[in-house]
Amino acid sequence: MSDAKVVVVGTIGLDTVRTPFGEKKEILGGSAVYASVASSFFSNTFLVGAAGKDFPATYVDFLKGRGIALDGMQILEGQTFRWSGYYEYDMNQAHTLDTQLNIYRSFSPSIPDAVKKGSYLFLANLDPELQLKVLDQMVEPKLVVADTMNYWISSKRELLHEVVKRVDFMLMNDAELRQYMETPNVPQAAAKLLAMGAKGVIVKKGEHGALLFTKSFHFSAPSYPQDKFVDPTGAGDSFAGGLIGYLAKTEDLGEDNLRKAVIIGSVMASFNVEDFSLERLKILKQKEVVHRFEEFRRFSAFEALSVAHWG
Amino acid sequence: MSDAKVVVVGTIGLDTVRTPFGEKKEILGGSAVYASVASSFFSNTFLVGAAGKDFPATYVDFLKGRGIALDGMQILEGQTFRWSGYYEYDMNQAHTLDTQLNIYRSFSPSIPDAVKKGSYLFLANLDPELQLKVLDQMVEPKLVVADTMNYWISSKRELLHEVVKRVDFMLMNDAELRQYMETPNVPQAAAKLLAMGAKGVIVKKGEHGALLFTKSFHFSAPSYPQDKFVDPTGAGDSFAGGLIGYLAKTEDLGEDNLRKAVIIGSVMASFNVEDFSLERLKILKQKEVVHRFEEFRRFSAFEALSVAHWG
Repeated sequence: MSDAKVVVVGTIGLDTVRTPFGEKKEILGGSAVYASVASSFFSNTFLVGAAGKDFPATYVDFLKGRGIALDGMQILEGQTFRWSGYYEYDMNQAHTLDTQLNIYRSFSPSIPDAVKKGSYLFLANLDPELQLKVLDQMVEPKLVVADTMNYWISSKRELLHEVVKRVDFMLMNDAELRQYMETPNVPQAAAKLLAMGAKGVIVKKGEHGALLFTKSFHFSAPSYPQDKFVDPTGAGDSFAGGLIGYLAKTEDLGEDNLRKAVIIGSVMASFNVEDFSLERLKILKQKEVVHRFEEFRRFSAFEALSVAHWG
Repeated sequence: MSDAKVVVVGTIGLDTVRTPFGEKKEILGGSAVYASVASSFFSNTFLVGAAGKDFPATYVDFLKGRGIALDGMQILEGQTFRWSGYYEYDMNQAHTLDTQLNIYRSFSPSIPDAVKKGSYLFLANLDPELQLKVLDQMVEPKLVVADTMNYWISSKRELLHEVVKRVDFMLMNDAELRQYMETPNVPQAAAKLLAMGAKGVIVKKGEHGALLFTKSFHFSAPSYPQDKFVDPTGAGDSFAGGLIGYLAKTEDLGEDNLRKAVIIGSVMASFNVEDFSLERLKILKQKEVVHRFEEFRRFSAFEALSVAHWG
């Protein structure tokens, strides 16, 4: 591993999830948890977030067991963040039943001194106000990737603009990008976002793959033929964690490596959705990651046209 | 060009279309028209379909000008097939206002003797009963690709099964494939369709690209960052026409060439949606096709992982 550190800021949560393949209550979840675990396959990862006194010790042990640094994890008086929702057969669409912010109502992220400088930062979906508070604490980050959601796009639009100006890559799904830029055409919406100051925008399209737009190139990552698809919760965050963990490991932000990082993100997401919670990542082996990366290459490759055939 | 001939069977129509970019009345359309024009860029193409006495001579001249053989085009007493519909900002979804079958109520396709044997056949979306009538006329076709739609899946399911058993590749969008196989998971639905006898299934996903499933390999074709997107009508048929025209030109049904054919189909569809009706294909040049194919390669390429980074 390189010396580079990944800092992940987001939620630590207990999820109650129903999909066509089962229902699970109060399982480990939260954006920072998914992203940290995915990142931990590649780099030293610091999780910044908060849990309540009711947060099960076994979950803390699991995170520690993955080598994730919890210096920035606060245990606060009160209840842990909770989300409950369900997916129908179109698992691209999450239906939220209930969100209990609980201790996240008063959460104020504090970045450990050890990683304030020169880190790779992933700002998971949070109030843009908190995202800005984190950015204020960082010194010369090597890379900042930020997620957001429709709620902040409509309720804190101006603050979100401030975030966009200060990050390298925005991570959004296609509907969010369209909504934010008030532009139905995705490539045009991406161009607008780049004009605001972000270096790049990564568009998550769930089962349809992912897109990366920068000012100098476009990359379209293929969809994975997801035969085993049990629970999409955390797919976007495990994508982000894989991407940033890989970039920190390789310390290379060149075009070729950014493309590979998008595939690594896709690989981690594709494993994550194979089971509930972090169950699949828990048993995932590095050689499986390498193998699936090669699968992505194999099923998206095609040769150049043979010019002899033309004319 | 090779000596191989492409036969396209489908509708010849007059479309009235509204998209966020304008409205056009009674413009040239129909599945066989879009597919034949796309195919004509690559191979000798025979259009089999019917028009009424009201069909404008200028449209016939356009098709002839593209070198499309009209031996199998019937001019019947009565009105030409008409479709009218609109698209909102999510242009993946067509909203049909009216379909007037007119002469297609009594249309019976008749394949010209010259192309009954050894041709490449595209059966555009039609009543499976008509598709079977065409198959009965063909002798040792080199390749058969068939399209269908939700209407036939629900109303003529058993006849559609017969079609599937007799074709090489089924062409469907993801929603149709899920509906037909009563399976929400696309790769699983594709596997079921292959088990019914088709050699392959090509899944059209509009702006999200296309998938090819066969028993021996999977190919995921990237989406194109479609900056100019005016009218999606005919995208699927120009995809199919490009694919089969290219396969007939190259006379190579090996895995590598099938992958390229899916990209050629994507290229033709991506041009087609840049304007209404056949306006873009009308002025399209071969070098633009080659250039866009290379663009598809460039924005979907990524390198292997550097193993030195691992461990």
